[in-house]
Amino acid sequence: MTNTANPLRDPRDKRLPRVAGPCVLVLFGVTGDLSRKKLLPAIYDLSNRGLLPPGFSLVGFARRDWENEDFRQIAYESVKAHARTPFREDVWTHLSEGMHFVPGEFGDPGAFDALAMAVKELDESRGTGGNYAFYLSVPPKFFPQVVEQLQRSGLAERKERQWRRVVIEKPFGHDLKSAKELNDTVHRVFPEESIFRIDHYLGKETVQNILALRFANTMYEPIWNRSYVDHVQITMAEDIGIGGRAGYYDGIGAARDVIQNHLLQLLALTSMEEPTSFSAEAVREEKAKILSSVRVASDLSLATARGQYAAGWQGGVSVQGYLEEDGIPAGSRTETYAAIKLEIDNRRWAGVPFYLRTGKRLSRRVTEVAMVFDRAPHLPFSHTDTEELGQNALVMRVQPDEGITVRFGSKVPGTSMEIRDVNMDFAYGESFTESSPEAYERLLLDVLIGDPPLFPRQEEVELSWKILDPITEYWASQGDMEQYPSGGYGPESADELMARDGRTWRRL
Amino acid sequence: MTNTANPLRDPRDKRLPRVAGPCVLVLFGVTGDLSRKKLLPAIYDLSNRGLLPPGFSLVGFARRDWENEDFRQIAYESVKAHARTPFREDVWTHLSEGMHFVPGEFGDPGAFDALAMAVKELDESRGTGGNYAFYLSVPPKFFPQVVEQLQRSGLAERKERQWRRVVIEKPFGHDLKSAKELNDTVHRVFPEESIFRIDHYLGKETVQNILALRFANTMYEPIWNRSYVDHVQITMAEDIGIGGRAGYYDGIGAARDVIQNHLLQLLALTSMEEPTSFSAEAVREEKAKILSSVRVASDLSLATARGQYAAGWQGGVSVQGYLEEDGIPAGSRTETYAAIKLEIDNRRWAGVPFYLRTGKRLSRRVTEVAMVFDRAPHLPFSHTDTEELGQNALVMRVQPDEGITVRFGSKVPGTSMEIRDVNMDFAYGESFTESSPEAYERLLLDVLIGDPPLFPRQEEVELSWKILDPITEYWASQGDMEQYPSGGYGPESADELMARDGRTWRRL
Repeated sequence: MTNTANPLRDPRDKRLPRVAGPCVLVLFGVTGDLSRKKLLPAIYDLSNRGLLPPGFSLVGFARRDWENEDFRQIAYESVKAHARTPFREDVWTHLSEGMHFVPGEFGDPGAFDALAMAVKELDESRGTGGNYAFYLSVPPKFFPQVVEQLQRSGLAERKERQWRRVVIEKPFGHDLKSAKELNDTVHRVFPEESIFRIDHYLGKETVQNILALRFANTMYEPIWNRSYVDHVQITMAEDIGIGGRAGYYDGIGAARDVIQNHLLQLLALTSMEEPTSFSAEAVREEKAKILSSVRVASDLSLATARGQYAAGWQGGVSVQGYLEEDGIPAGSRTETYAAIKLEIDNRRWAGVPFYLRTGKRLSRRVTEVAMVFDRAPHLPFSHTDTEELGQNALVMRVQPDEGITVRFGSKVPGTSMEIRDVNMDFAYGESFTESSPEAYERLLLDVLIGDPPLFPRQEEVELSWKILDPITEYWASQGDMEQYPSGGYGPESADELMARDGRTWRRL
Repeated sequence: MTNTANPLRDPRDKRLPRVAGPCVLVLFGVTGDLSRKKLLPAIYDLSNRGLLPPGFSLVGFARRDWENEDFRQIAYESVKAHARTPFREDVWTHLSEGMHFVPGEFGDPGAFDALAMAVKELDESRGTGGNYAFYLSVPPKFFPQVVEQLQRSGLAERKERQWRRVVIEKPFGHDLKSAKELNDTVHRVFPEESIFRIDHYLGKETVQNILALRFANTMYEPIWNRSYVDHVQITMAEDIGIGGRAGYYDGIGAARDVIQNHLLQLLALTSMEEPTSFSAEAVREEKAKILSSVRVASDLSLATARGQYAAGWQGGVSVQGYLEEDGIPAGSRTETYAAIKLEIDNRRWAGVPFYLRTGKRLSRRVTEVAMVFDRAPHLPFSHTDTEELGQNALVMRVQPDEGITVRFGSKVPGTSMEIRDVNMDFAYGESFTESSPEAYERLLLDVLIGDPPLFPRQEEVELSWKILDPITEYWASQGDMEQYPSGGYGPESADELMARDGRTWRRL
């Protein structure tokens, strides 16, 4: 299958596509939700787009009594249900021939020996070149066993010109200490450059578009600094509750679940200096500089707010509060809403507050970064003419309705010079005929190519925990947990946090 | 009729509207096209919006054997056909009671005595306060007679606290010398502050919105200068030919008809410094500063281009060339397309070319000002990823589809960091429920209120001719006139003008 024959590629496009070289992807936890809904369909889509090598092979490993055929059938169903690109029989046949299953426990040496044998056979039969990626789609508590067995069975060992990569998913610990321990576990076997930490948010088109917007254009960088920006609001609001995830969520909470990774990464991409290139090293370097410059106000009672959702109405349906959810212990003090005010101590951003908020059971689902600009220093209009004029804003909408909104003042039609705020809009989906790849598609390809600018390195993970640890410790020391009604805008204390600065949250 | 009772006003709007005080408007040339299609409907619309005083009176003057009732009937028909606001019987009745007609020749003292008597009667019967505006909707050759008769009959003379205003329409001469003569004629009777020169383009909402966009916002002024702007393109393209206007147009041409007034005013509004206030004096001061800083390249053969439309196809219809139009003398060398490159010698704009172009029988009708920005100084992306990335642009669309377009680079959906130009759009008509007043509505109200920031003063008219005279003289000294096919993009020499600078015109 050559690329020119690929119907999903524009034949006018003369660029060489980013294509993965020969390799085997070993998927641990292949029976899980993530595998079925995201990873397996993403692998098919990559194959369909011609971005995987002809001999690409996929090995599933799990505690199931499956044959290869069972695995292929499960994968087939998951592709049929969740793939983004059209189903093509020849692509599927080709891909499924390279799919194998190895049953076993994470602590069973025999199973890993069988895995090692299966993988080596694939090297010979399909020319995968001895290059292996291990995707650990399993809870972190299994990491020690898995990496140890990878080492013992010889799978972690590589010859010259071969590569080994290990992919892990957040949570990367639950504080700085546990993050370091987790990292040490993996590092005992794999060096830092082989570890790929996936934050699927960073694979989203619109997150990457923040970098394109800032650095491919002339218009925005000149105003992207303390001289023109009044403050920045980074929001990830969800309208759903915790669903069936009580076991994972309780004790973790909104700050650790969302702010530590997604929101601090969005903050870094929004505020970092231009990297010298788009290489992984250069981009991560700039992100780390930002994260190490982030400062939380010393009085945490003024710079943070949190809450727990109470019963309420969501989309016309009565819903229960967090404490009534199945599996949540009585009196749990896990926050489902968190807001914090940060500053960045560098020349570009000194004095510009960055407000981060995330919460569950809010009025709607939205993720966005809003740059809110200063008011014009002088308005040559009469006061009454500009009563309905707010502050200029540039909003990068990550989801849903991916795109960019610019709010600015325009003349109201009429015989006087009256000014009012209006919105100028760019919708990502309307401007491109190309279909947007799923975040995991992009990220899996980055792993197989070994080009990880979108993956946080351990330094970033630790810097993020350093920012967050004092806050979660402060909260743990506090008594009452504020309740906020489901379907609303979050706790009052979050509004007060803004009000103290004379500002308001953007309407959800 | 109080304002609060006016159904066209938003009752929540607590601002005082700009409303005209007591006065009489005398319309010379009331039987002409402009009166019927624009001025009379605009007067009705102003009245309907509650912006005219209760006793407002309108006197028509023309060479017709009409009674008041004939005039009212003509006005009624023109309002019915062309007004923008809904017809309301009570508004019309009230307005028409104040409408009078005086028949006569422009050189006939008796007719002007009758006019003076009619106006004075209105002062008494309708309380118009002895305030008169004279709208000279007549060819400039009649100006001397009309102003002389206004003086002789005592109409130009005012008592304390009264005002006299005289409104004239372009063309304000056809070169610097004739503009001065025309001005001297009017000045013999009226002082400069009483003279209102109407350029209806300046009454358009989107032209005024240039000022709102620039000075009510924070985002745009920082990049509105030579550090970020590569060049500016100001275009007024028409798809129609000269129609029945051969007598007016031939010998005048595109540069005098459009560039001298519309395009140089657009240039001034786009590039001027912020005025200290929105008062007429402050705005005109800044416009004049720009016009006196404008410089044309010394080698006019490189900085200008012109042409005449030849036969061609327009909207699927075969159309004839300029020289075949009715009333055009054989071998006429009047240009129907003109392009010039200007620079502004000041700190903000030094070295930034402003390209102005206008033409008839082009592929489509569009008036716009496009700020084209520099390329980003450095792109941290690979070369192939940015192949389809052009220059950022901010386009102020004056007509049709009034609004603003921002062109910028965005990531193309896909697994590589490919960047392509996209458009972000603001449509004036979609963002406001208010109906846009016709340009003449705004301008007539400015005359009656005596607030003329949108009217060029004589200084600006003369500065514009100073810019244009060397160019029209140079063209007159040249031999051949380039022909361009109707329905196309103008003469090749205009494309060459841009190509010499390594640039291209925006696609029409």
